[in-house]
Amino acid sequence: MEQPEKDRPEASVAEKTRKTAALYFKNVADEKPYDLWRSFDKNLARDLSVFITGRMYAREKIPHTVRQLVTVAALTVLVRPEELRLHIQAALNVGCTPAEIAETIFQTAVYGGVPAVNTALKTLRSVLEEKGMWPMEQEDGGR
Amino acid sequence: MEQPEKDRPEASVAEKTRKTAALYFKNVADEKPYDLWRSFDKNLARDLSVFITGRMYAREKIPHTVRQLVTVAALTVLVRPEELRLHIQAALNVGCTPAEIAETIFQTAVYGGVPAVNTALKTLRSVLEEKGMWPMEQEDGGR
Amino acid sequence: MEQPEKDRPEASVAEKTRKTAALYFKNVADEKPYDLWRSFDKNLARDLSVFITGRMYAREKIPHTVRQLVTVAALTVLVRPEELRLHIQAALNVGCTPAEIAETIFQTAVYGGVPAVNTALKTLRSVLEEKGMWPMEQEDGGR
Amino acid sequence: MEQPEKDRPEASVAEKTRKTAALYFKNVADEKPYDLWRSFDKNLARDLSVFITGRMYAREKIPHTVRQLVTVAALTVLVRPEELRLHIQAALNVGCTPAEIAETIFQTAVYGGVPAVNTALKTLRSVLEEKGMWPMEQEDGGR
Amino acid sequence: MEQPEKDRPEASVAEKTRKTAALYFKNVADEKPYDLWRSFDKNLARDLSVFITGRMYAREKIPHTVRQLVTVAALTVLVRPEELRLHIQAALNVGCTPAEIAETIFQTAVYGGVPAVNTALKTLRSVLEEKGMWPMEQEDGGR
Amino acid sequence: MEQPEKDRPEASVAEKTRKTAALYFKNVADEKPYDLWRSFDKNLARDLSVFITGRMYAREKIPHTVRQLVTVAALTVLVRPEELRLHIQAALNVGCTPAEIAETIFQTAVYGGVPAVNTALKTLRSVLEEKGMWPMEQEDGGR
Repeated sequence: MEQPEKDRPEASVAEKTRKTAALYFKNVADEKPYDLWRSFDKNLARDLSVFITGRMYAREKIPHTVRQLVTVAALTVLVRPEELRLHIQAALNVGCTPAEIAETIFQTAVYGGVPAVNTALKTLRSVLEEKGMWPMEQEDGGR
Repeated sequence: MEQPEKDRPEASVAEKTRKTAALYFKNVADEKPYDLWRSFDKNLARDLSVFITGRMYAREKIPHTVRQLVTVAALTVLVRPEELRLHIQAALNVGCTPAEIAETIFQTAVYGGVPAVNTALKTLRSVLEEKGMWPMEQEDGGR
Repeated sequence: MEQPEKDRPEASVAEKTRKTAALYFKNVADEKPYDLWRSFDKNLARDLSVFITGRMYAREKIPHTVRQLVTVAALTVLVRPEELRLHIQAALNVGCTPAEIAETIFQTAVYGGVPAVNTALKTLRSVLEEKGMWPMEQEDGGR
Repeated sequence: MEQPEKDRPEASVAEKTRKTAALYFKNVADEKPYDLWRSFDKNLARDLSVFITGRMYAREKIPHTVRQLVTVAALTVLVRPEELRLHIQAALNVGCTPAEIAETIFQTAVYGGVPAVNTALKTLRSVLEEKGMWPMEQEDGGR
Repeated sequence: MEQPEKDRPEASVAEKTRKTAALYFKNVADEKPYDLWRSFDKNLARDLSVFITGRMYAREKIPHTVRQLVTVAALTVLVRPEELRLHIQAALNVGCTPAEIAETIFQTAVYGGVPAVNTALKTLRSVLEEKGMWPMEQEDGGR
Repeated sequence: MEQPEKDRPEASVAEKTRKTAALYFKNVADEKPYDLWRSFDKNLARDLSVFITGRMYAREKIPHTVRQLVTVAALTVLVRPEELRLHIQAALNVGCTPAEIAETIFQTAVYGGVPAVNTALKTLRSVLEEKGMWPMEQEDGGR
């Protein structure tokens, strides 16, 4: 492994995978998809992890905050609350505020329907409760 | 209607609806949902438009660029290409770049699957072609 | 086949299948699912048709008008415009009005999202245009 | 607020919102979406509630019984059991029978698939059990 | 009922329904859909069961192992974990290996997304745990 | 690049990607996803292609025929007719018969609903027509 950097794409993607995973999933206690995959197939787990975390999440075309909000929107309308829990925590880890995450969820109501929003809001509330960040402060008391 | 501003919430929401619609859908030639709804029910069309455009889109909790990217993500995984066309145009109108829109679409592949991404990319390509913005410039020629 | 009625369940279900199909799909020019299925597998086509039309649609637990509106709602949120075309025509055949069908579609917006509603409304509009029933009369000109 | 009725659309929609909510959700112990939304954003909660309950549910284009069955159908195929619980209770409150609700759920099997029906039937059964309305009486003992 | 076999299609389909149900759902302790349906409507339960188990599952156009893997794939991307539990057990009953079922689930990731795969893998793991077949043996320890 | 095979995982995966793509998509005239992705982002196109074709499709845990039928089932219930076209062609290329593909599609009706099946059958019919393989021969003329 004494090759110069440009000859070691797999070394650098492994490094990117580790760094990005650390950034996103710091202090996340839920079972990680990577561990679930590994219990079935170690090679495929590595391939999936390198592709998703090392190739996709590590790209720098949009800021991590936007990448996470975009992910929250997708998981809200798909109604995938377990994966959403992971990415709400990742969104907080990269600097999104609870209010921005809530707004992103509400914005999808017109597209994916209100019940999907309700499920996502309950997921957000449960994450914020676990972190001692609930109730959220509201800017004003209503019209 | 000579009441002071604070007593006229409906006047201000009508104004917000108009301004936000103008910002998002400037130069959009596709049939607008509002016109479709009006052909069935004028009152309900007004209620829907005021709620969606005046109440929801006009909120200032996240920037318009983020609101549009979040919307693009939701419409991609739901596979709603007609509505996606409208919001790709809105995203460009508020200042998102084609590369940011493409990245948002690609990011959803892990959650909503690759075929949904492909449909969205074709929609994006057709909008960019119509606007003379295709092919997109790529930063580098690959590894 | 000279058995009395009570011994011939299959004769009576075949009769119910024919009658219900005639009621629902009178004057429907679109390709019927039954003909599509038959081109692949004649036996399975018969089984599917007997189950769906003879067993399910022929039940008398709710009026045919309600059964069709319920079906319109399901097909709207699932975004199945080709099947929706068939059941909008069936709904008109059993006596639903265009306004009732439109209202049913609009009612689903909160659950399945607005883009799904838009696709369904366009489908309804195209059926009404073909039947010379467009534009729909509106009760009042708005508030 | 001494204006005549025609000048107070927002007063009348607030009244409609209250009346319709009381009609639909009388004796419903589950968390209401309105309360969930309020815990995140009081203004948006009001806007959503006024639009959904005051504007949409309060319309008189189809009877409340049909509006609820249509809603049950949509929520069944979308597999949204928490929201379905609310609307099964609303359906019973406006006068639908358990057999009509069950028939509506079964009717969607052809469109949204049998597993979605099974989830909805379990939700219906649990509501009927809570209300002491289970087991349902069946008209006949089978063929 | 003394007719010769060829005149008794319903007798033979009832027999096929019983045999196929016994093959697929031997030792399955979960509530069967048939019992759920019967608690609402005995006649419809019989019709659904005859169609699904006697007509559809009993067909011999593809082997039972392939029919079950195809079903696992459909239920994975639709995210129907309760029905998936039944068909993972049916797949094992007809001779599919845990590794084949896992591979089928992983293969859908590209189409239905990774969160749907994760839910299905957890369902598979829980069935294997109940049967004392967990952890799965892996062919090699990774690259 | 003079390293022995075991030190060149990326060389071998590139080779696997090429071989598997050639096997599956021989004589497929439709736009390939890889070409669509490349027009947006060459690096990401390579990563996606290597992961999907080189890592996932090239695995040998289930036969290619089963892998394609499983894929057909997933794309049927997701209603992705463009991607389904590609995989119906891949299924034929690896040796599945039209009758096996049709049966796989029909089998999903119970899970994803009949309208999704109808869309997939039309897609299958159009591929078979293009290849001069339509109408399909049926074993018997029905009961």
